[in-house]
Order: sequence, then C-alpha cells, then structure tokens
Amino acid sequence: MLDGMARWAPDTRERLRAAALELFEERGFGATTVPDIVERAGVTRRTFFRHFSDKREVFFGDDEIPSRATAMLRAAPPAAPAFAIAWTGLRALAVERFEPRRDQMAASRRIIDAEPSLRERDLQKQADLREAIRAGCAERGSDPLTSRVVAGVTVELLQTALERWLADEGGMPLTRHLDEVRERMSGVLGSPLPS
Amino acid sequence: MLDGMARWAPDTRERLRAAALELFEERGFGATTVPDIVERAGVTRRTFFRHFSDKREVFFGDDEIPSRATAMLRAAPPAAPAFAIAWTGLRALAVERFEPRRDQMAASRRIIDAEPSLRERDLQKQADLREAIRAGCAERGSDPLTSRVVAGVTVELLQTALERWLADEGGMPLTRHLDEVRERMSGVLGSPLPS
Repeated sequence: MLDGMARWAPDTRERLRAAALELFEERGFGATTVPDIVERAGVTRRTFFRHFSDKREVFFGDDEIPSRATAMLRAAPPAAPAFAIAWTGLRALAVERFEPRRDQMAASRRIIDAEPSLRERDLQKQADLREAIRAGCAERGSDPLTSRVVAGVTVELLQTALERWLADEGGMPLTRHLDEVRERMSGVLGSPLPS
Repeated sequence: MLDGMARWAPDTRERLRAAALELFEERGFGATTVPDIVERAGVTRRTFFRHFSDKREVFFGDDEIPSRATAMLRAAPPAAPAFAIAWTGLRALAVERFEPRRDQMAASRRIIDAEPSLRERDLQKQADLREAIRAGCAERGSDPLTSRVVAGVTVELLQTALERWLADEGGMPLTRHLDEVRERMSGVLGSPLPS
C-alpha cells in the first residue's frame, strides 16, 4: 500500500517524498541513498535535485509554514489580537495541511526521532517559525514582550498538539488536541502559586 | 578587565571558560583553537581536555540543569503541583546561578547567535531540559498531557525571560522578567477567542 502511494502520488515532489519515507523506514535514514530514492520513485536523479538539495531536505524542504504565518499576520484586520490570528492559523493548518497527511507525518516523526541530525534540524525549523511569528506580530504593532510570547506559545502549542495527535491511537482530530493543550497550558499558568 | 577575569577566576574550569569566551568574542568561534584557549588560560592542553571534549562544549559542558530539575521534582512533597515546583526551581536558578553570571551569559549568547552549529546545540539543550522535566512530572504521577505541558511551558518561560533579561539595559532582575513573561503568557492564552 505504501508502495502504491509512492507510484501514484499526485505530483513528483510528493512521489519523491513518499518513496524516501518508505526507504527511510525500511532501511534507516543513514543507509538510504539518493539513487535508491529516485529508483523507487521512478524519476531521474536530476529530478530529485530539482526538488531537494539533499535527502535531509525531503523532510524539511517545503517550509512554507513560516511564510504562511507572515502572510496571515499581514492580512488580518489591524484590531485583531495577535494570538487570535495565530490561533485561527493553527486551526486552519491542522485541518487543511496536517489532518490529510497523518500517516506520512507519523512516519516522518519516527525517522526524525531516530536521527540526531534530523532532530536538530527539526528544532531549528521550530525556531524559524517562532521568529516569523514574532516578527509578524511586531510588524502589526504588538509590543516586543507580547510578540515574543505569542510566538513562543503558538509554536509550543502546535508542537505539543502534533506530538499528542501523532501518538494518539484513538483518532481524536488535531484541532481537538490543540484545544486540549491550550486549555491545559492556560490552567497550568493561571494556577495560584507561591512566589 | 576580562583578561583579569580569565587569569584570576576561582577554578580551572571557569578560567578555561572565561578565556574561551574572550577569544571567541575577539576572533570569532571558528578562528579560535584549543591551543589558543589553553595559552590564554595558562593551563595545559591536557587540562582543557579533562574538562571539555571540544571547544563547543565550553558553552554546553556543565549541563547540570536537567539533573537539577529531576532532583527537585523528586524531592518535592507529593501533593505539590508540578508547575509550582518548576516555577520555584526557575526562580532559584535565576537567583543562584544566572544573576551572578550575567556578563558571561550575554557574551555566550552573542557567540551562539552568530554560529549555526552552536544554535542547533543550544536548541537541543532546551529539548533535553524539556524532556527531563516531562519525565520528572510523569514520575510524580502527573498525567501525560500535564507532564508535557508543564515541561514545555517551563522551558519556554525560562528561554523567553533569559532573552529579555540579557537584552535589557535597564537592569531589571531575571526573577522580575520571569514574572512578567509568565503573566503575559497567561494573559495571551486566557483571552477569549473565536474558535
């Protein structure tokens, strides 16, 4: 079935990605080569390099999420609070982009978790998104503390909800995981504490 | 004055660290070698390698923060809420460990920010602390969602407060930055939102 996915995926980029993930799962990331991937995907080596600079980029190549965050923060009405915009963005991302790819994302996650160089790159990707959100909030006129906090909270929320969703065998949708994590974060932070 | 710090710092490890930071600031991280560092610190090469496996470890070698978090979570009374323990830990860390080293930490920060391999390692260090806190909460009996959220919120809070404190020319103490960030996080998360 995974093999079928690799052959019939709708576009070349997705086909290469599916082939790479299959091979990474079968053989491990380190033992898989670019020639292996192009053979499995049935495309030329040249085509691979038109889409990705190396095999690590198969995971991280389509990084349109930060630019999407920037665009959303620019397009939203001036009076909208920054976190409300980010929250709406997270929910849209969950429905449109993540939900339809759960199996592929779960496979990616297993490979990333097993490979230190991919883990480091994954953390850097989160840091890039955080910075895009921070800059977008600042551009809208949020003060520096709010901009930084909205960015940090948004990325932490997304990351935690994604982890829980990918590990969840009960099939609860990502949007519900987002709600759950947000509520718990708020509860934890708001509880009365000894100073 | 920095030179004086390097020569008279109380122990060898700190002396090596101060010498390395001076050189990284003067020449850049890439252009500084271990022989340069030992010469500046007035110790042997052998001594350097007794303390650090390479020059990158000068920043990251004394990683006792995760084990300190683990120990605190173990030692706290069973009824104490996990985040209250973490919060008390952050404040203690701020006063005992970070406040006395502000200049050195600011210098480290500038060097890390300029060097991608150090930035990746710094992010990994934050991930290690997050995991130590998560595991420590779970060991105390917190449910998985709470454990993960307490860990994520604690690390994000610390990181944001440290950034703001190091950039703050007004001299506001780190504990006040922690309070400020926590309050803003709570405010951002708790505000009413359109679903």
